[in-house]
Amino acid sequence: MGTKTYLSKMINGNIFFKEAEAEWEPAGEGILRQITGYNTQLMMVKVKFEKGAVGYVHDHFHSQGSIVASGKFKITIDETTEVLEAGDGFFVPPNARHGAECLEAGVLIDVFSPVREDFL
Amino acid sequence: MGTKTYLSKMINGNIFFKEAEAEWEPAGEGILRQITGYNTQLMMVKVKFEKGAVGYVHDHFHSQGSIVASGKFKITIDETTEVLEAGDGFFVPPNARHGAECLEAGVLIDVFSPVREDFL
Repeated sequence: MGTKTYLSKMINGNIFFKEAEAEWEPAGEGILRQITGYNTQLMMVKVKFEKGAVGYVHDHFHSQGSIVASGKFKITIDETTEVLEAGDGFFVPPNARHGAECLEAGVLIDVFSPVREDFL
Repeated sequence: MGTKTYLSKMINGNIFFKEAEAEWEPAGEGILRQITGYNTQLMMVKVKFEKGAVGYVHDHFHSQGSIVASGKFKITIDETTEVLEAGDGFFVPPNARHGAECLEAGVLIDVFSPVREDFL
C-alpha cells in the first residue's frame, strides 16, 4: 500500500474514529488493537491487554510515545523497569529496546512516527 | 531550544512520565496540559478540559492524532462536527482547521508530528 493510498484514505474517511464502530484486531496472546488514525508521518493505536499479557521486548526505528489509559503495566525500556498506571506514560526513542507486561487489565495508547507500515 | 537539547533531555531523563510527579500547565481557560514525552519527531500531550472549555478552531502544519481518554467532546475538523466519548478519536491532517468543545469534563490525548516547538 503506497503513500498515496494512505493519504487518500485519511482524507476521505478516517478523520473520526468511533470505538463502537470498529473491530479489535488480534495483536498477540491476550492483546487486541485498534488503529484510530494515521498518515505516513504519524500513527495512533489503542492496545487492550488482558491481565498477564506480555508485549515482548523488541525495538523499531520509529519514535514511540505511550500513555496508560487504564490498568497497570510493568514497562521496560533498555535497562530500566517502572510500574505505570492510568495517566502515566513513557517515550521510546528510535531503536530503544522496550516491552510491556500487563499487571491489571487495561489499555495503552501507543503512537508512532513515522507510520508503522507493518501494522497495515 | 535546539534539536540536540531535546534529544539529550529525552535520553537522560524523560523516558518515563508519572502523572503524580508532574505539574499541569495552563493552556487556555478551563484547560490544563501535561507533556508526557517528546523528541524532534513526535510529541505526546494530555489535555484536561473543564466542562464548557473550548479549544478554539485553529490549524498548524503538524499532523495530529487524538483520543478521548475520558469525558465527552464536540470536535470539528474542517466542515464536519462529531461528538466523541472515551475510546473514540480523530486525526487532523497537516493544516486542517480543527477545534474542540468540552461537553463533559475529561481528558484528550493529543499527539503531534513533528514536535510542537511552540509548546516548549
